[in-house]
Amino acid sequence: MARSHRIDCLQFANWSEEIFQQMRSGNVDAVHATIAYHGNFRETVLAIEQWNSWFERFPDLIFAGRTGDDVRRARENGRTAIFFGFQNPSPIEDDIGLVEICHTLGVRFMQLSYNNQSLLATGCYEAQDPGVTRMGRQVIVEMNRVGMVVDMSHSAERSTLEAIEFSTRPIAITHANPAAWHPALRNKSDDVLRALSQAGGMLGFSFYPHHLKDKSDCTLSNFCEMVARTADLMGPESIGIGSDLCQNQPNSIVEWMRVGRWTKQIDYGEGSRDDAGFPPMPSWFNDNRDFDTVEDGLRAVGLSDKEVAGVMGENWLRFYDKNFGPAAD
Amino acid sequence: MARSHRIDCLQFANWSEEIFQQMRSGNVDAVHATIAYHGNFRETVLAIEQWNSWFERFPDLIFAGRTGDDVRRARENGRTAIFFGFQNPSPIEDDIGLVEICHTLGVRFMQLSYNNQSLLATGCYEAQDPGVTRMGRQVIVEMNRVGMVVDMSHSAERSTLEAIEFSTRPIAITHANPAAWHPALRNKSDDVLRALSQAGGMLGFSFYPHHLKDKSDCTLSNFCEMVARTADLMGPESIGIGSDLCQNQPNSIVEWMRVGRWTKQIDYGEGSRDDAGFPPMPSWFNDNRDFDTVEDGLRAVGLSDKEVAGVMGENWLRFYDKNFGPAAD
Repeated sequence: MARSHRIDCLQFANWSEEIFQQMRSGNVDAVHATIAYHGNFRETVLAIEQWNSWFERFPDLIFAGRTGDDVRRARENGRTAIFFGFQNPSPIEDDIGLVEICHTLGVRFMQLSYNNQSLLATGCYEAQDPGVTRMGRQVIVEMNRVGMVVDMSHSAERSTLEAIEFSTRPIAITHANPAAWHPALRNKSDDVLRALSQAGGMLGFSFYPHHLKDKSDCTLSNFCEMVARTADLMGPESIGIGSDLCQNQPNSIVEWMRVGRWTKQIDYGEGSRDDAGFPPMPSWFNDNRDFDTVEDGLRAVGLSDKEVAGVMGENWLRFYDKNFGPAAD
Repeated sequence: MARSHRIDCLQFANWSEEIFQQMRSGNVDAVHATIAYHGNFRETVLAIEQWNSWFERFPDLIFAGRTGDDVRRARENGRTAIFFGFQNPSPIEDDIGLVEICHTLGVRFMQLSYNNQSLLATGCYEAQDPGVTRMGRQVIVEMNRVGMVVDMSHSAERSTLEAIEFSTRPIAITHANPAAWHPALRNKSDDVLRALSQAGGMLGFSFYPHHLKDKSDCTLSNFCEMVARTADLMGPESIGIGSDLCQNQPNSIVEWMRVGRWTKQIDYGEGSRDDAGFPPMPSWFNDNRDFDTVEDGLRAVGLSDKEVAGVMGENWLRFYDKNFGPAAD
């Protein structure tokens, strides 16, 4: 019997042939790759051009993913399908027409905000969250129409609840964990997680230390017990992986993620002056070759084979099938 | 028996629902629509956004064409497939990576130059033609790779001959006529036409009066006799239609086409101070409903049914099938 599909629904690595080979070693059939934090449209197109050059150079390792079937194709011929996503709506500038343009270019996820207030919604570090904006509602309608998934990973509570309710199609939180387990601003309340799953949405569990209980010291069993409890809360079909792997990135990149061009001062985000850089990953997940370890951990806390397969990729694949193109009538 | 496919391989109309309906009345299965003369990348994306809004508003009339099979699909369900093209390489700026980006967005033809010298090649109004540039050769390789057709309609002789020779895939002159019939700078020498067809390329006959013998007074039979003679020169499978229809455009548009932002003075192009605007179309071709008239004219000068079907669309369809994606191995 063919192994189940394996999908990581959020990475932002310092991409290289070595990392693409590790994806293959780890049997990762699909990766949702962040291609924009703070860039405008033209800068984002440059990021896609960079990916195109990798697709051309490493055709035996990676290719541009567009639909769920590309994940199946990836498994069949031993490659990894790369799906693009934005962590901020800055690439669409103030132009709703760019939603469809970006979808045509392969973008399948867009966060409505990244930590701060955006034109569309509020980020999780703002003091006030007035909810989804006028333009935000229009953009959700357009994303629903073309099949670009609303991602609220870095958004604030009210905006997230409103996006879940207003969107006519399921949304995603591609990379975060339950706040009840580890109360980071980036993690999500049980209210959000319940509403998300009731609307058919998905949560991707993050391995990023600032989202983990005990941060870099988080144990695999503690993490996997959290997954099992979240399966109880949301249902085992509403959860997957969004590792937030930032492999081989220099610390200048985490500064860019936090600061972009929105401030001239330093902002430490989830870090602090004494802990400003990327935190060390937990011992049990350093790169794409470590998914077997996670899978073993999930079995060890009592998840069934079917539940484990769901978390490791089958749940995301079902979500991709339904949400990456125009809605079926 | 189903009617043969009908393709117009160049229009730049002031698009409207009325014109799209006329395409349907005229059984036009596909149109290659110019979306850029002098704009940069971002401006060109705005033009695609405008087309996307028409595709959304008029889904029963038009849709975005990508492959030859879309022409077949258009005929099957009574719509017109729109294929995008550039009359100048300005949309790719000085960035070769934008070739693939634009191809992904549906661009299937790009002229290497428009009347003037470009970064890639020389236009037909320049006094000197040094041939295809260093960047031009690189861009031809890239266009060949992704399946974007080199179009030399507005290019100068040497550049055109070099592009034909250097390109590993057939090129097109989407809208021009033989200079031996009407010696306009925009029309093409027998040397060019012979080299074009020998390399598998295509010529689209233009109905634009400045390219016609006797201009607006050109008769249908005179035009069709020219087609028949060109069939003798190039072979009946290397010719099609590229009407250059600029329906309902105000004269400010022909000025934009000629002047863009490259000069602060007026340039009359193929016109003159006394004849600066769009010339009146010949009596036998005013819009998309007049293709039956052209077809009758071709029969009247002795072309066979098969040859007529070829000119009216089957030749372009065969060309689209071969040249709109990566080359078959």
